[in-house]
Amino acid sequence: MAGSGYGTLFRLTTFGESHGPAIGGIVEGVPAGLELSPEEIQQQLDRRRPGQSAIVTQRKESDEVEFLSGIFEGKTTGSPIGFLVRNNDQKPADYDEMKDTFRPSHADYTYEQKYGIRDHRGGGRSSARETISRVVAGAIARQVLNGLGIRIEAFVDQVGPLRWKGEWKPELAEVREKNPVRVPDAAMAEEMEALIREVRKDGDTIGGCIRCVITGVPSGLGEPVFDKLHAELGKAMLSVNAVKGFTIGSGFDSVEMRGSEHNDLFLEGGKTATNHSGGIQGGISNGMPLDFRVAFKPVATIMKDQQTIDNKLEETTLAGRGRHDACVVPRAVVIVESMAAIVLLDFHLRNKAVKW
Amino acid sequence: MAGSGYGTLFRLTTFGESHGPAIGGIVEGVPAGLELSPEEIQQQLDRRRPGQSAIVTQRKESDEVEFLSGIFEGKTTGSPIGFLVRNNDQKPADYDEMKDTFRPSHADYTYEQKYGIRDHRGGGRSSARETISRVVAGAIARQVLNGLGIRIEAFVDQVGPLRWKGEWKPELAEVREKNPVRVPDAAMAEEMEALIREVRKDGDTIGGCIRCVITGVPSGLGEPVFDKLHAELGKAMLSVNAVKGFTIGSGFDSVEMRGSEHNDLFLEGGKTATNHSGGIQGGISNGMPLDFRVAFKPVATIMKDQQTIDNKLEETTLAGRGRHDACVVPRAVVIVESMAAIVLLDFHLRNKAVKW
Amino acid sequence: MAGSGYGTLFRLTTFGESHGPAIGGIVEGVPAGLELSPEEIQQQLDRRRPGQSAIVTQRKESDEVEFLSGIFEGKTTGSPIGFLVRNNDQKPADYDEMKDTFRPSHADYTYEQKYGIRDHRGGGRSSARETISRVVAGAIARQVLNGLGIRIEAFVDQVGPLRWKGEWKPELAEVREKNPVRVPDAAMAEEMEALIREVRKDGDTIGGCIRCVITGVPSGLGEPVFDKLHAELGKAMLSVNAVKGFTIGSGFDSVEMRGSEHNDLFLEGGKTATNHSGGIQGGISNGMPLDFRVAFKPVATIMKDQQTIDNKLEETTLAGRGRHDACVVPRAVVIVESMAAIVLLDFHLRNKAVKW
Amino acid sequence: MAGSGYGTLFRLTTFGESHGPAIGGIVEGVPAGLELSPEEIQQQLDRRRPGQSAIVTQRKESDEVEFLSGIFEGKTTGSPIGFLVRNNDQKPADYDEMKDTFRPSHADYTYEQKYGIRDHRGGGRSSARETISRVVAGAIARQVLNGLGIRIEAFVDQVGPLRWKGEWKPELAEVREKNPVRVPDAAMAEEMEALIREVRKDGDTIGGCIRCVITGVPSGLGEPVFDKLHAELGKAMLSVNAVKGFTIGSGFDSVEMRGSEHNDLFLEGGKTATNHSGGIQGGISNGMPLDFRVAFKPVATIMKDQQTIDNKLEETTLAGRGRHDACVVPRAVVIVESMAAIVLLDFHLRNKAVKW
Repeated sequence: MAGSGYGTLFRLTTFGESHGPAIGGIVEGVPAGLELSPEEIQQQLDRRRPGQSAIVTQRKESDEVEFLSGIFEGKTTGSPIGFLVRNNDQKPADYDEMKDTFRPSHADYTYEQKYGIRDHRGGGRSSARETISRVVAGAIARQVLNGLGIRIEAFVDQVGPLRWKGEWKPELAEVREKNPVRVPDAAMAEEMEALIREVRKDGDTIGGCIRCVITGVPSGLGEPVFDKLHAELGKAMLSVNAVKGFTIGSGFDSVEMRGSEHNDLFLEGGKTATNHSGGIQGGISNGMPLDFRVAFKPVATIMKDQQTIDNKLEETTLAGRGRHDACVVPRAVVIVESMAAIVLLDFHLRNKAVKW
Repeated sequence: MAGSGYGTLFRLTTFGESHGPAIGGIVEGVPAGLELSPEEIQQQLDRRRPGQSAIVTQRKESDEVEFLSGIFEGKTTGSPIGFLVRNNDQKPADYDEMKDTFRPSHADYTYEQKYGIRDHRGGGRSSARETISRVVAGAIARQVLNGLGIRIEAFVDQVGPLRWKGEWKPELAEVREKNPVRVPDAAMAEEMEALIREVRKDGDTIGGCIRCVITGVPSGLGEPVFDKLHAELGKAMLSVNAVKGFTIGSGFDSVEMRGSEHNDLFLEGGKTATNHSGGIQGGISNGMPLDFRVAFKPVATIMKDQQTIDNKLEETTLAGRGRHDACVVPRAVVIVESMAAIVLLDFHLRNKAVKW
Repeated sequence: MAGSGYGTLFRLTTFGESHGPAIGGIVEGVPAGLELSPEEIQQQLDRRRPGQSAIVTQRKESDEVEFLSGIFEGKTTGSPIGFLVRNNDQKPADYDEMKDTFRPSHADYTYEQKYGIRDHRGGGRSSARETISRVVAGAIARQVLNGLGIRIEAFVDQVGPLRWKGEWKPELAEVREKNPVRVPDAAMAEEMEALIREVRKDGDTIGGCIRCVITGVPSGLGEPVFDKLHAELGKAMLSVNAVKGFTIGSGFDSVEMRGSEHNDLFLEGGKTATNHSGGIQGGISNGMPLDFRVAFKPVATIMKDQQTIDNKLEETTLAGRGRHDACVVPRAVVIVESMAAIVLLDFHLRNKAVKW
Repeated sequence: MAGSGYGTLFRLTTFGESHGPAIGGIVEGVPAGLELSPEEIQQQLDRRRPGQSAIVTQRKESDEVEFLSGIFEGKTTGSPIGFLVRNNDQKPADYDEMKDTFRPSHADYTYEQKYGIRDHRGGGRSSARETISRVVAGAIARQVLNGLGIRIEAFVDQVGPLRWKGEWKPELAEVREKNPVRVPDAAMAEEMEALIREVRKDGDTIGGCIRCVITGVPSGLGEPVFDKLHAELGKAMLSVNAVKGFTIGSGFDSVEMRGSEHNDLFLEGGKTATNHSGGIQGGISNGMPLDFRVAFKPVATIMKDQQTIDNKLEETTLAGRGRHDACVVPRAVVIVESMAAIVLLDFHLRNKAVKW
């Protein structure tokens, strides 16, 4: 297909550039008759919004979503839900410099190479502002999944070298939402916040990790052989801006383990004693919690001068500038959850077709 | 779609269980007029084949591919290529025990849960034998990509705790093929081989990693925003049996880096001084080598007794058995390369549609 | 997929109900660097607009399209084009009756059966107002096709029993646009117009046919075996509201012909002496004009009382009402052309992938 | 996608040329646990087979299907069903003439133009022999649909000018199978058979029509707006070799009707007094029988010399030859039924996703 759509039965297609008139999308396959809560959707958008705390970008974007179809008297009709969010904080003059200069580790150069033309303002189509549409669709999917008892919780578990290795419990969700880093540990939150402030003071940025734990997933979701549940989750996460890695369950740690140690032994009833599999065996959910991690690189926009090239591929210098995040993970937690919700609802719907 | 197909324009659909009559597939979108070398295809299959060295499974499978369509007088016609490989070494009696018992960390339980029925013999559809079809399609794609100057080289860079951290160079391909582990370093190969033998002697298995470097990729491959090149590569790799993680470029190491350190500064002409991006920016190739890593868990079949459950979800013991690999990565190198070839050719064809 | 999207590489996804806030869509796969003329797009929309002549519905809809993305400084960027048209002439009170009553030969009953809920106002999602989005996407596709020398011309060739059997010539396009029926013959236009007026006076409606001739199509478009060019054109046309039949070339007339009479004999150079094939052989264009016909049933909304049932499936009477067309074909000409343009551009892009 | 696959959840992908080693396919999305009857599948294949009566081609093809996967101990497992039919009656020498000559109204010329290469033997990929795979997949789908009470019956209702206008009743299926034309009327069968024999004696061929009536279809199948049930049925039928037209319900007859006459008035309970809609309103089934007609052109291979062109596009003469059908419809009845079954099962599975 054409690249801006995701999903088979529950499907999101998005449009929009960061400095065009609006960004938005179409959500197909929303089950009919669902009482949709616009407040919950806005609440999820607010978790992604710039300016929500002192450690994220201070750009002012209201990010209010307008629904254009698919909802009638507060309920979904089964017809596609069209929606948009207007782009308000447009200061295109800010971006004049980017017209002729390729920012290092951004998509400026590759879009120019691919299309021979690009909307240079704020990254255009490659801007992370596109993820607004993912959060809207994810928030819709989540409301359906909630009704099925599926609970999706992501949280920051690493910022730079600081890693939280505690055990996740549902009640930690509250702790997580109370600190601006979205790590489920108040003490660690302070450490991480201090690090992010320090990095920002340097005019620099830093990477981080998000872990996601999903409980209440019935066994049977996922389609062999190419559309394995974790393969699709991996694609969904890797399609998010700045993501460099994805692991499920034991991930790269499994490499050093022996089979006798790694195998998840079954307990009476079907649960397993350990969960190195991350809730998935052979690409299909086994009823244990899904558990995966996503690595985010440091944001490419920094406040330092950098050597780069211009449209003629000749050397030039790019001045440090911008109102960007020093660390992307606090705002990306909801994006990870949203993509997970989109994938899970799609597989839930696909799974209905299996039995006669 | 239905889960057993992969790709948009260049597309592979597979069928087959490990102990059914045959496994095989259909490759659609093969460019017309390509002089196809069956020898090269068989050569790639031989790199995957059991019994090729002392450290892999000693099952006897000839794995000879029969082509059924799409080739006329040695050339591709643009019509789909149907192919099959007969299953010869069927000893179904070996698998009687698996009929009523779920093997830990295999797909037995999840298939049973999803479908209410399963072909228990050797894992059925979930068997890694299915990857034969991927190697056939990958070998076809590779012949097209070779003509475009794209060279795909994967190699083992870790077995258990032993990691090769050398610098990859194309000439190391030869070194890699000369040792049974497929690591591009003769000394490290000996160490790794010794470890695998030791693990096998214990009746156990161990994990490993494969790194893949692809040179000659033009800039412009990959489709924003969901079908980013590395997102699709990630899905392709995560769909391979036993894979638990995927990273592109700096991967999880990026988490601890600062932006000023991580950014790939442009050099005159468009190349970059470093390649933390792994050859991809904004989901689109930038002309630098693609560079990714794939984590494989230890094989789940071990020669030790394990606690597990039966069809009634009651506890039972599974006796150690089988003729499986003690470490899967030596044979998986060609599978990684094959999936990469399938993804790249598909994106190459899709990219042709961009310019008017 | 999910039903509201169409196309593989050039792809339209639509949203919107007739009496919701807006209808619109997303067009993916628009080739980059195309100088897009908004005037031409609006011009095509005007050919579909209500109120354009005395014989079509007098509803007042301005149908002005707002583009939200994918266009930068007047040129396409290769990113998806999001667009919307606000719904202005909403008189929901007009539709109170439809809340509990199923209109005969409309989609009220089937939507209720499928979804258990429906937006009853003006047909909701099933309203022909959705075709606005098709005209927008078609007008974009047409501008690309124009640059390739492909010219798409549809026209009314039948209203009720009145059929124009003249020979189509490109210069007749002007004649067609000069009469409100859009038949390429001034005398026939008067006859047809009189018939439509008479039918409307009766409070009734009448069916009609549209023929479409496309010149300049290169040979090679179309994909065997399921995605034959005429199969996809057929689906595209049959997906338009009120369409009951589709024929290519000789169509149903071929049934009474003999092979010796029907075969299109080749002339030196590759053209054929006749064009019973309608420009397609084996599903692939042969360089001759594409030539197909589309049958439209009489509009279901009439000014007469009709026996019907209510939500409880009990008998009731539906009063005649509405501001609908007495014959849909004059306004449907541009819809047929638009769907043809969408199909052709998609196949043009897909065809680029065939040769190595 | 790539053109040789059809369907979303229930999906058939085919391969094979008429004179290659085999033709076959992969059926994905077969519901698990279905007791599959190979006899019924073979029975359907036999209805399509050459040589079954005096009025069809006398080529000898056994057309025995070999199943390669997806069936375990007589039941479907939910895994894809791979299958093949070997090509036996290969007399490639018969086709030497076609190497350099394009047969009128065949796909020789268009394949050559598209791919620059073609397997000229017997039409290669464009041969109607490909429809064997459709019959196999259709026979599988039909067994699932039978269990749901859906009954698909197609029959010949026209050969040349001879048209049967009787009323279809399920009990006529037996009459239909008793005559070689497959028309549900013994007297008409004799007339039609006589006509076909006469045409064949002339070395000529003649067209025909097939009507298909499907009962037991629940309301709610079909997806708005592009994937309307009749749009997909239309595509499915138009993708069959030699088809030139498709109509649903009143079809082209609707053109001359008035709305007051054409509207299907509802009766208490939801049925309609007439069925001009052909069982579909707004693209969704309404519970009345599906009813459509398919037009087949006269077979292009005739026993008369024809003027044509060679590979250099220069004029030449093609000698009459071959062992082809004088009229294709008797053998195409099962193909129409099979494609209908494939479409209906796919929509049945897709419809499961609609409600929460």
